[in-house]
Amino acid sequence: MKIAIDLNGGDRAPEEILKGCLEFLKNHPREKLILCTTKNEPDNLFDLNHPQITVEYFTHAVGMKETPAKSKKEKPDNTIEGTLRLVKNRKADCAFSCGNSGAIILNSVDVLGLKDPNTHPSLISFIPLYNRPPLAVFDVGALGNYVFNAELYFAVLHETVDIYTKLYGVKEPEIKLLNIGTESWKGTAEHKNIYRMMSDSLYNFTGNIEGDELLFTDASVIVTDGLTGNIVLKLLESFNVLLQNFRNFKDCKFDNNYLNFLIEDFNYETIGGAPLTGVNGKVVIGHGKSSSKAVRSALELCVKYAEI
Amino acid sequence: MKIAIDLNGGDRAPEEILKGCLEFLKNHPREKLILCTTKNEPDNLFDLNHPQITVEYFTHAVGMKETPAKSKKEKPDNTIEGTLRLVKNRKADCAFSCGNSGAIILNSVDVLGLKDPNTHPSLISFIPLYNRPPLAVFDVGALGNYVFNAELYFAVLHETVDIYTKLYGVKEPEIKLLNIGTESWKGTAEHKNIYRMMSDSLYNFTGNIEGDELLFTDASVIVTDGLTGNIVLKLLESFNVLLQNFRNFKDCKFDNNYLNFLIEDFNYETIGGAPLTGVNGKVVIGHGKSSSKAVRSALELCVKYAEI
Repeated sequence: MKIAIDLNGGDRAPEEILKGCLEFLKNHPREKLILCTTKNEPDNLFDLNHPQITVEYFTHAVGMKETPAKSKKEKPDNTIEGTLRLVKNRKADCAFSCGNSGAIILNSVDVLGLKDPNTHPSLISFIPLYNRPPLAVFDVGALGNYVFNAELYFAVLHETVDIYTKLYGVKEPEIKLLNIGTESWKGTAEHKNIYRMMSDSLYNFTGNIEGDELLFTDASVIVTDGLTGNIVLKLLESFNVLLQNFRNFKDCKFDNNYLNFLIEDFNYETIGGAPLTGVNGKVVIGHGKSSSKAVRSALELCVKYAEI
Repeated sequence: MKIAIDLNGGDRAPEEILKGCLEFLKNHPREKLILCTTKNEPDNLFDLNHPQITVEYFTHAVGMKETPAKSKKEKPDNTIEGTLRLVKNRKADCAFSCGNSGAIILNSVDVLGLKDPNTHPSLISFIPLYNRPPLAVFDVGALGNYVFNAELYFAVLHETVDIYTKLYGVKEPEIKLLNIGTESWKGTAEHKNIYRMMSDSLYNFTGNIEGDELLFTDASVIVTDGLTGNIVLKLLESFNVLLQNFRNFKDCKFDNNYLNFLIEDFNYETIGGAPLTGVNGKVVIGHGKSSSKAVRSALELCVKYAEI
C-alpha cells in the first residue's frame, strides 16, 4: 500500500510525524509512504534516502487554528490538499493527516467528492477495549459549525458499519444510540428521528445507551450527535491521563493485564486515527496532538483501511 | 433545617433511601427529616419512632420509567409532589428525591412555579475534585425531550453561579463553555449564541473548554447543552467503576492520597444530589441508582443548600 502523509499537520509536526513514519516502516518493509510537505522544512529532515519514502512538495501548510474555508481560499496548494490529490489520482491508497480536521474534511469533499450528495462526511473514532475489538463512535464532530441532522447521519451509517465489519471482522455489529435515557422518546428531536429510522430498518440496532454503559457495552457501533461524541472522546483521553498517575506509585507492580491495558493502551495512541466516511476515497484523520506512537498506530489503520 | 424526602423514588427505594437517612441523622442531631411515602410500604420500615423523623402519606409513587406528563395526570397525589408541597407550604426547607427526574422537574414547575417565565428549570451537577471545591456542570439535561436554548440557559446562569458561590465559598467563579474547540465559532448555533451572551456580560467567562481539559481545569462552572452534560456526567461515573478494579489488586497498598481520592471519592456518591434552578423553592435531585452513601451526601447538600 501507498499512504500519503501530511507532514505539516498536527501540534507536534513535522518531527513527531516523521518519527512515527520511520517507526512504522521498521515493521512494514513492503509499505510505501509519500510525505507531503512544504519547501520550508529544514533539509536535514529529509536527509533520509529511505527506500520506502518519497517526498512531494507543496506551497503551503494549514495552521491548526485556521478557519477551514479561509485557509482553502488563501492556501490552495497546501499539504492537506496534496495528500488528497494523490488519492484522487490513484498515486496513493489512503491519505493521512493529523492537521486541521475542518480543513481535511472540506478538502476531502472538494478533491474526492461526496459519494452521494445526500450524505454527510463524518468521522468514525475507535475507543480501545480490553480483549476485544474497539468500540466505534460515530460521529465525533470534526466540523466547527456543528449541526446534527438525523437523515444525513443515517445515510452514512451503513458505510460506517461496513468499514467496522471489514476492519475488525465483527459481522452484523450491534448498534446503539448514545442518549440521556434508554427510552425511545428521550433526547432531541433529531435523536428521536434517527432512533426511529434505525429501529425501522436496522435489525442490529438495539436502542439507546447512556454514558455510564459506554465502556461496558457489548455493542460495537455507537451513534452520537457529533458534538457530544467529540466531547466524550476527549474526556476519555483525560481518563488515561489520570491513570498515568498510577505509574508513579512505586510500591505497585502492574502485572495485572487489565490494569496494564488501562494504563498503557486505553489511549487514543493505540488506534491513532479516524476514517472519514462519505467521500470517494480513503482518508484517515489523526489527533492534533499525535505523538510518534499515535502516528505509527494510525498508519497501521491506514494500511488495513486501504486493503478493505 | 427540615428536609422533605421522597422515600419511593430511585432504583433502590425505599430501603436504601431510608438507610441513607438514618446514617445522615447520626451525624446531624439537630436536623429534621419528613419522609414522604405511600401507605403500601411495609409497616416495619416505619417502626422507627425516631425523634428527628416524621412521615407523611400520599396515594401514589411515580415509577422511574413513567412519562412525566402522564404520571402527573394519572397520579396527582404522589410522593414527589408531596415533598414539593411541603416546601411550598413552608413545612420543609428543601425537597429531595432520587426518583424520575422529569417528574420532579415538571412537579417543581407546577407546585413551586418558575421564578421568571423566561427562565428554564435546569440541573446543576457537581464533579468531585481533589483538594478543591467540586466542578459545577450546568446543565445535565434532566428533561426527556431535550432542547438547548441559549437564552433560557443564560437566564438561569446567574442563579447557578450564585448557588455555587454560596455552597462552596468560591467568589466570582471562572465559567467555561464545554465545546468541540476553543475557538468562539465552534459548536452549534446555540453554543455560539450563549458564547456571545456570556462574553458580552460575564467578565469571569473565559471561553470554551474541550472534553480533555474538563478534569484539569481551574474553572469552577462548566456550561453545556444538557444532553452532552448528562452523557459526560454518566461517563465520569463509569471511570470510577474502572478504578474500582484497582482495589482488587492485592499487591498494591493505596496510601497515596490522590489515588485514594480517585478510587474512593471520585464518584457521584460523594455529592449525591443536583440542585434544580429556576423554581421558587429549593429542590435537590438524586441519582436514580443512589446508594445509602449517596443519599447521606445528598442530605448534607440539602442542608447546606437550605441554609443559603
